[in-house]
Amino acid sequence: MNVKILGKVRHYRTVTFHPARNTVALIEQRLLPHRFEIIETRDFRATARAIRDMVVRGAGAIGATAAYGLAQGARAFRGRSLEAFSRHVDEVYSTLKNARPTAVDPVNAMNQVRAAMRAGETVEEQQALALAAAEEFANDDVRHCEEIGRHGAKLIRNGSRILTHCNAGWLAFVDIGSATAPMYAAQAQGKKFHVFCDETRPRCQGATLTAWELAQQGISHEIIADNAAGHLMQRGEIDLVIVGSDRTLGRTGEVANKIGTYTKAVLAKRHGIPFYVAIPLSTIDWTLKSGFDIPIEERSESEVLGAWGVPVNLKSQISNLKSRYVRIANPGSSARNPGFDVTPAELITGIITPVGIFRPRELWKHRKALGFGL
Amino acid sequence: MNVKILGKVRHYRTVTFHPARNTVALIEQRLLPHRFEIIETRDFRATARAIRDMVVRGAGAIGATAAYGLAQGARAFRGRSLEAFSRHVDEVYSTLKNARPTAVDPVNAMNQVRAAMRAGETVEEQQALALAAAEEFANDDVRHCEEIGRHGAKLIRNGSRILTHCNAGWLAFVDIGSATAPMYAAQAQGKKFHVFCDETRPRCQGATLTAWELAQQGISHEIIADNAAGHLMQRGEIDLVIVGSDRTLGRTGEVANKIGTYTKAVLAKRHGIPFYVAIPLSTIDWTLKSGFDIPIEERSESEVLGAWGVPVNLKSQISNLKSRYVRIANPGSSARNPGFDVTPAELITGIITPVGIFRPRELWKHRKALGFGL
Repeated sequence: MNVKILGKVRHYRTVTFHPARNTVALIEQRLLPHRFEIIETRDFRATARAIRDMVVRGAGAIGATAAYGLAQGARAFRGRSLEAFSRHVDEVYSTLKNARPTAVDPVNAMNQVRAAMRAGETVEEQQALALAAAEEFANDDVRHCEEIGRHGAKLIRNGSRILTHCNAGWLAFVDIGSATAPMYAAQAQGKKFHVFCDETRPRCQGATLTAWELAQQGISHEIIADNAAGHLMQRGEIDLVIVGSDRTLGRTGEVANKIGTYTKAVLAKRHGIPFYVAIPLSTIDWTLKSGFDIPIEERSESEVLGAWGVPVNLKSQISNLKSRYVRIANPGSSARNPGFDVTPAELITGIITPVGIFRPRELWKHRKALGFGL
Repeated sequence: MNVKILGKVRHYRTVTFHPARNTVALIEQRLLPHRFEIIETRDFRATARAIRDMVVRGAGAIGATAAYGLAQGARAFRGRSLEAFSRHVDEVYSTLKNARPTAVDPVNAMNQVRAAMRAGETVEEQQALALAAAEEFANDDVRHCEEIGRHGAKLIRNGSRILTHCNAGWLAFVDIGSATAPMYAAQAQGKKFHVFCDETRPRCQGATLTAWELAQQGISHEIIADNAAGHLMQRGEIDLVIVGSDRTLGRTGEVANKIGTYTKAVLAKRHGIPFYVAIPLSTIDWTLKSGFDIPIEERSESEVLGAWGVPVNLKSQISNLKSRYVRIANPGSSARNPGFDVTPAELITGIITPVGIFRPRELWKHRKALGFGL
């Protein structure tokens, strides 16, 4: 998507590859929204560190980063022995996998790259195939998000006032995003609408990343405290809710997403406001039979007890400041910090996927179209 | 209530008066929770500034501060002319009233003091009556909170897990508080229970003031992001909600309170969790016929776009650090910041008052017991 820096607009993807330099270029997301910086990782170990240290986050984005990282590692191999090359690629694979051991996207992405490499008969051919497969993975990620946008844009009317939670935007994918895809597609169609970004405590991804994205794209938006959505719905100021999902249960239509999503769904139901979840197919879990079986990560107390910010004397929109952590809460107190919650199917109007919009309880019925068993 | 400083426990009220020095002593609430400090205002103008600058906040607390401020101003008068004295008292009254022009509590409190002064036949007598009336106002505030506690404590069982929102604690009154009163009373009865404090963005009064109070009183508690209450209710971890109120409509049972209260009430209803509102009688509005007529203050964007905190290297529980403001949100984005919301009667299990617990729709039926027309 577009990024405006010092008045100039440039197009960026969250993750790209420079073949000549054999580097992976990443937006340094930990510096956003106060500072925009592209970093280039010079070898696969640096790429793994970028995944581990959250320079890049979000399902599609870390998948593509791992795919490029595998190609990067493979291309750095010097020699003709396919056996030595294979051992080297194994090492690259494990290093990238271990950077975020619980995430499934890097593994899926790298498996695709490895499968494509098998068609090569020489080291050189396999290296070329690795890069082509990684590029294909990244391009597929973009295309899937475009498809989500194409289907979801129909839900947005001129004048729509949309609520979103957390960041399921282009920064979480290679481009375009999931929850934001319908917005960017509707904007391209010339529709005018307004987005309320939930701040999304404790990590504030809505106030930082989603607001930053929407500002770059010139979409009308305002940040609200997570506490304010109920009041705005009660006063008739929200027409539509679109959020993303970390895991959607294909058998039940339940959606695990950032903490606070469930609350917004309960409020939307009470007020008769449509509540949509936008997802790429890779986040559908066809195995689990109940949302209560989804493990809910308890994250660090420090996230709730404080916040990351910069001093206020910002002179320009893109400043040069690094966020620092400040303690907000009473120093004698502790916190609970569940990172995710589960929204039941009855509260969800529809699931927006790259192949269409489905009622949550009908995902199973349409499992073949939705890629089950692929 | 009790405050522990450097291992020593002392009893404090939020507002007290020192007759010998003719000063009003206030807890400097803007420094909490990182620093505990008592300031003394030397004259009524300083007392008015303390109200205006939010050194002291909360209905009962600013009422008592204004009452003491009026007595302080009256007692500073030198001379015997009742006419000159009366003009001086008028000036003191206006100065204190204008410190927080939209608040009703300072006006009500000062009117009580002025009415009591009329029985005096000399300047000296009126000065003595002013102080006695201010002391009576403060003691009444404490007694009303004690009565709220006596009624509300019955709702708390051994093992109860209670959610509260914002700060309706002793810092908002002269002592004990409204929403916290049942907790302190239950604790005095030997009951063991746990309190979840909603952080209460954007001003974080739950994470700062309520958590500080509960820590001082040794009550088991944890801070949660405002986003987390829905998840905890869904998992069966909350038994009871108690909040305060800025204004309760006597005719409809609707409750205006800190933004986010409505959301918690909607969630509690969905999960069949009792939702109580604790109020002193002074917050009942017998005039308005609909919650939609309550003006909802739109507060400064900066509250949503950032937060107040201190660097993390805190060495002791009571440190010497001042909070500073940091910007969290994207610098290019703006915010909406409604300060309050309105919870309808159907979501409220009961209103805890000094004279008993009432169904919200039955306040009007019991209006005489609840002080209507007094």
